[in-house]
Amino acid sequence: MAFYAIALGSCTENKQHDIIECFYPQPIMAPNAEWVGQLQSVLSMGPTASVTRVPLKHLETVADLFESADYDMTAQFARLSIEGETELVLTLLEQDIAPDSVPAAYLKLHLLSHRLVKPHSTNIDGIFGVLRNIAWTNLGPIDMPELPEWQMATRARGQTLQVFSVDKFPKMVDYVVPSGIRIADSSRVRLGAYLGEGTTIMHEGFVNFNAGTEAASMVEGRITAGVFVHKGSDIGGGASIMGTLSGGGKTVISVGESCLVGANAGIGISLGDRCIVEAGLYITAGTKVSVVDPDTGNHSVMKAAALSGLSDLLFIRNSLTGAVECRANKTAVSLNAILHQND
Amino acid sequence: MAFYAIALGSCTENKQHDIIECFYPQPIMAPNAEWVGQLQSVLSMGPTASVTRVPLKHLETVADLFESADYDMTAQFARLSIEGETELVLTLLEQDIAPDSVPAAYLKLHLLSHRLVKPHSTNIDGIFGVLRNIAWTNLGPIDMPELPEWQMATRARGQTLQVFSVDKFPKMVDYVVPSGIRIADSSRVRLGAYLGEGTTIMHEGFVNFNAGTEAASMVEGRITAGVFVHKGSDIGGGASIMGTLSGGGKTVISVGESCLVGANAGIGISLGDRCIVEAGLYITAGTKVSVVDPDTGNHSVMKAAALSGLSDLLFIRNSLTGAVECRANKTAVSLNAILHQND
Amino acid sequence: MAFYAIALGSCTENKQHDIIECFYPQPIMAPNAEWVGQLQSVLSMGPTASVTRVPLKHLETVADLFESADYDMTAQFARLSIEGETELVLTLLEQDIAPDSVPAAYLKLHLLSHRLVKPHSTNIDGIFGVLRNIAWTNLGPIDMPELPEWQMATRARGQTLQVFSVDKFPKMVDYVVPSGIRIADSSRVRLGAYLGEGTTIMHEGFVNFNAGTEAASMVEGRITAGVFVHKGSDIGGGASIMGTLSGGGKTVISVGESCLVGANAGIGISLGDRCIVEAGLYITAGTKVSVVDPDTGNHSVMKAAALSGLSDLLFIRNSLTGAVECRANKTAVSLNAILHQND
Repeated sequence: MAFYAIALGSCTENKQHDIIECFYPQPIMAPNAEWVGQLQSVLSMGPTASVTRVPLKHLETVADLFESADYDMTAQFARLSIEGETELVLTLLEQDIAPDSVPAAYLKLHLLSHRLVKPHSTNIDGIFGVLRNIAWTNLGPIDMPELPEWQMATRARGQTLQVFSVDKFPKMVDYVVPSGIRIADSSRVRLGAYLGEGTTIMHEGFVNFNAGTEAASMVEGRITAGVFVHKGSDIGGGASIMGTLSGGGKTVISVGESCLVGANAGIGISLGDRCIVEAGLYITAGTKVSVVDPDTGNHSVMKAAALSGLSDLLFIRNSLTGAVECRANKTAVSLNAILHQND
Repeated sequence: MAFYAIALGSCTENKQHDIIECFYPQPIMAPNAEWVGQLQSVLSMGPTASVTRVPLKHLETVADLFESADYDMTAQFARLSIEGETELVLTLLEQDIAPDSVPAAYLKLHLLSHRLVKPHSTNIDGIFGVLRNIAWTNLGPIDMPELPEWQMATRARGQTLQVFSVDKFPKMVDYVVPSGIRIADSSRVRLGAYLGEGTTIMHEGFVNFNAGTEAASMVEGRITAGVFVHKGSDIGGGASIMGTLSGGGKTVISVGESCLVGANAGIGISLGDRCIVEAGLYITAGTKVSVVDPDTGNHSVMKAAALSGLSDLLFIRNSLTGAVECRANKTAVSLNAILHQND
Repeated sequence: MAFYAIALGSCTENKQHDIIECFYPQPIMAPNAEWVGQLQSVLSMGPTASVTRVPLKHLETVADLFESADYDMTAQFARLSIEGETELVLTLLEQDIAPDSVPAAYLKLHLLSHRLVKPHSTNIDGIFGVLRNIAWTNLGPIDMPELPEWQMATRARGQTLQVFSVDKFPKMVDYVVPSGIRIADSSRVRLGAYLGEGTTIMHEGFVNFNAGTEAASMVEGRITAGVFVHKGSDIGGGASIMGTLSGGGKTVISVGESCLVGANAGIGISLGDRCIVEAGLYITAGTKVSVVDPDTGNHSVMKAAALSGLSDLLFIRNSLTGAVECRANKTAVSLNAILHQND
């Protein structure tokens, strides 16, 4: 029998002992079935159990088992938790099915942000229904119904409760910081984002869950849920990317390699490789574009949707006629390493 | 005699014992005059006192009085404050006049964010002159003149003082989290915002004080001071709404029901119901618009100000001619519940 | 012998005892050479030493020396650090050369944010190579390689580690809060920004290092690295300013006095004084502009780069023809004090 993923984590509970969020230091894909069987045996897990609380008394054995399989980080975490007297949770996903619990949903989001799965390649159907709306505070995650009491209790001690976000998704970096990235304002990248090595998210950048960048990328605009940006592409300051083909339903938008979406620009279509959208220009699927034939110079009009996904295009608005034009892009965008270092 | 509002709260003082901010767990509109009289008597308040410090020794009696009027949350807060040895402040507003103290100003802002009054329906004239510029830090609110000393003292202990904001207005959710909302980055909603049930403020959304949403709404753009957005309208990512009619002085802008202001779009006029402004298009009051007669197809030119507040309009920039056009909007925007759940 | 700058500060080290960031309460320009000599003597500094650790046993003597030169704030900080048992670091820059260490780089950034030097007037060449990528957390700055361990240790105690930013630059206000400013969301202003007295940075505003405002200014858009905005100019909500002349390499962009860059607008050229760029219009250096002769009304076409830095210009996109036009701006922008107070 094969398994999809497993992880040992620390979870926060509300007063009703519902788990409201989970942190897994080391999510594991495709764990060995026999080894999983040992864990199941130690913890007396039923065959279908996906979320199992691990009491302190079993943590040492569990740590040994993780260490035996070279999952040293989890072993270390288990031992630290013994010292800290914190019970843990073992989450086992037998198959890649829609998450049906908070621990399962958080594990899926961890898989994405740990770069173990790419956007759209793990099943997160219905995740909004599973996740709870949480107040993310300086005192940790608080279930919404309990927030007023926390606020009063804190104030009554002469202190303040600081609420950074009220949302179903936490910010990624409180759970995962993948290698080789910078995120200037971490509140703008949700857990479940996939950030490739070499990605910089500037203050105005944003990345939703199940979306992200393949590799080196300078992101100063908004990468909406579902959107994937391939290596060497820059998303300019304040640029907007629609989640799905505008007006077109479910076609998810992607940006190819070495593209530049200019500052304050926007796209409602996919881009192939080496495309440029001029600063300040918004192309939706329905935008009528005057396409310039590179050989004859003749213009023909078509909807931008017809150009979706094509490479080597330059989109501008002719500043004398106001017409949106598409030309062949002679200049490949080469990411200037120094420029990136200086942003 | 009738009263406008009352609340029992916890306040922060600077070194000169000036109150610099206040938290009220349960602001109360139109309290019963006789009951207020009992409070005034217990606390020996003069007839015109609007802000009264409540010493610990009176808190039990005050808690009982609030409980007797079924203000259980305040009673609970008073009792927690006895335990925490935190003195409280009673703020009584006899009439809806311009706030003349920090506690009065904060009470007005609480009334808005608790949805007890709508934007523009309570007098906050001159509130900027009353509020102090505060450093909002991980150690709580600090009066600006004292900040350097705090910074040095914290560092000298080998710790760090973290300043999240230097502003007259705090973020709303440190004081009030109304029901049925989400705010992905809470630093972008000021106390005094009015967020209707079902409102989601995404990371790029923003709501100023005395502004907000009536009901369900997806806000990914900026709702400037004074602006009110009616139910079922969406403000797209990075969209801008001017606070007053652009170039037109004091006319406050509003957005009707079921409108869509596209991503990176902007408006300097009001919208009626079921209007759409195309992504990337900025309409100011002075924008000359080519209005298309739905019957004849003829175009007539008028300033956008003349269209302010009208319903069922679609604003686009013709991508072939560059002209800004206004057409009748055949498609009512129906908020897609699933879409909202997934942002 | 003259010296460029000196400061006594508190630094964070990683596990290898590398300094990863420094806070200086009072950076000092051009200190007296004889006085510096006394410090060097007390601390047995070599003649070329630029960064010297100051052990606790010397702090009292060092405090006396700073006090003798009327640097009272530093003296106070040294004495607080004795109490707090925190060792300090003395950073001495003999000349204005490129920073070659973390303490030197942080001192340069402090000089800018303390308004002791203006953008472009201190040498920060190669600062990206010197600064380390840091996790800025609720527990203070953490060197990236140590972050996973901190995350696990915190969670194992049942607490949460909150990471606000993963970046080479910290936010300014954790180090310096210059007088007469407001910053609604402080995560958007980097250390090394220069904010003139009277500057307000609203939630959507942003200021990078080595960039900023000369004096009173309302900033709701993005001031990119290197850009300087002169007094009385407003940068509208979501407005974008390119760091260098777009397509033009190294020419740094500036904005003159009393300009208005409209909401969601953008510029890739410099503006002189009293210029206006209409909301939503992006002018790059290559934008072909139809310039209207104020005498004859005739239009002539030129690239925007040719207009860079000129005064009294109004840039709009003609909403009937779609052409970008430049006219003489008859209306000087007078910053409305009340408007500013209300943002």
